[in-house]
Amino acid sequence: MTSRKVIELFYDVVSPYSWLAFEVMCRYRNTWNIDLKLRPAFLGGIMQGSGNKPPAVIPNKFAYMAKDLARLGQYFDVPLRYPSDPFEVMFNKGSLPAMRFLTAVHEGEKGRDKQVEQVSRELWRRIWYEDKDITEPASLSEAAIKAGLSDSEITEVLKQYTSKDIKDKLKSATQNALDYGAFGFPLLVCHVNSKPEIFFGSDRFELMAHCIGEKWLGPLPDKSSAKL
Amino acid sequence: MTSRKVIELFYDVVSPYSWLAFEVMCRYRNTWNIDLKLRPAFLGGIMQGSGNKPPAVIPNKFAYMAKDLARLGQYFDVPLRYPSDPFEVMFNKGSLPAMRFLTAVHEGEKGRDKQVEQVSRELWRRIWYEDKDITEPASLSEAAIKAGLSDSEITEVLKQYTSKDIKDKLKSATQNALDYGAFGFPLLVCHVNSKPEIFFGSDRFELMAHCIGEKWLGPLPDKSSAKL
Repeated sequence: MTSRKVIELFYDVVSPYSWLAFEVMCRYRNTWNIDLKLRPAFLGGIMQGSGNKPPAVIPNKFAYMAKDLARLGQYFDVPLRYPSDPFEVMFNKGSLPAMRFLTAVHEGEKGRDKQVEQVSRELWRRIWYEDKDITEPASLSEAAIKAGLSDSEITEVLKQYTSKDIKDKLKSATQNALDYGAFGFPLLVCHVNSKPEIFFGSDRFELMAHCIGEKWLGPLPDKSSAKL
Repeated sequence: MTSRKVIELFYDVVSPYSWLAFEVMCRYRNTWNIDLKLRPAFLGGIMQGSGNKPPAVIPNKFAYMAKDLARLGQYFDVPLRYPSDPFEVMFNKGSLPAMRFLTAVHEGEKGRDKQVEQVSRELWRRIWYEDKDITEPASLSEAAIKAGLSDSEITEVLKQYTSKDIKDKLKSATQNALDYGAFGFPLLVCHVNSKPEIFFGSDRFELMAHCIGEKWLGPLPDKSSAKL
């Protein structure tokens, strides 16, 4: 029995706003009385399933987003910067292999939460700081090595991440987010009094804190490994 | 000579998120060292000019927006509720006469800022609380009476609000917002060190405060006349 509130964070590493929410929630996990569940899912499936379009297709939105992310990255102390060709990265290459890889890390063995967190962070860092690929097996391995996975774990995950089982699990997580009403990521689902309260984006933390009876203290100092 | 920072708030009364930003900025005007300039403009022109689509056209976004606005209205102490037919209100009836009316109030005489503020609030209250029309001259008069305008002022504004001069002034304010990069409202333009910093939406107050060297204190108590 526990009174900790469960918060599910649905995210995709192709989404920079998801990185902000991810780091903030990882920090608040140690401050609020919450149990944070990382839910890697596929943003492409969310956009298709909800009929939504990425914000970057509107030129003024795209320009604003670049500025907004730079300011937010600095404010939240997350080392975020635009890749040299953001359209190529976001729309052509996408994140399907990366999210399948993360799903396979998650499903591998019990207690893999820490690994999922670390591999997610390394993938975000590749795409949203180092301007590196996240679609090739070699890229995924590199991220997993940096995240501290052993050679045998990586071999196992690489064997499984294109299996039907893993594909289905990613689909099911994505459907789960759609069922909660997702139209983009990050999506935060707070289970309070057995009623899910959903929050979209990385700009509702203060409101979310208020709704779950916790206190928003602004961006906490980064004690995780997000620093370079 | 003054060191007060100028913040322009571009808004349209058809936009409920603009109401939140409007009330919050009216409260912070007395707390931060700022000079708030109200800039009524036409959201329809922003959507057309930027190629953006209203969020409400995606069903999951629409459902989320209803919930989000209810929570935000409560948190910010702004009496916001959905009209019975939000699509009719937002897309069919729209806000062109209302925004022309506000432009005419603004342009009427010097020192009309207080009236613009009060008429704006009454128009938001009609559409986003009382579920009343804001397109007919009688509706606009009613809002202006509640806002404290005199009969002769109202007669003058009603005479002018469909003139070419007022139409052009609203177009010019809307173009001004587009030139700042608007793709929706509210748009906050902070003039700090002679460089405009723009913030979209009613969810960047904390970041904005940080960027202009002020302190975000959460939603302040409502000392304006927004209470019913």
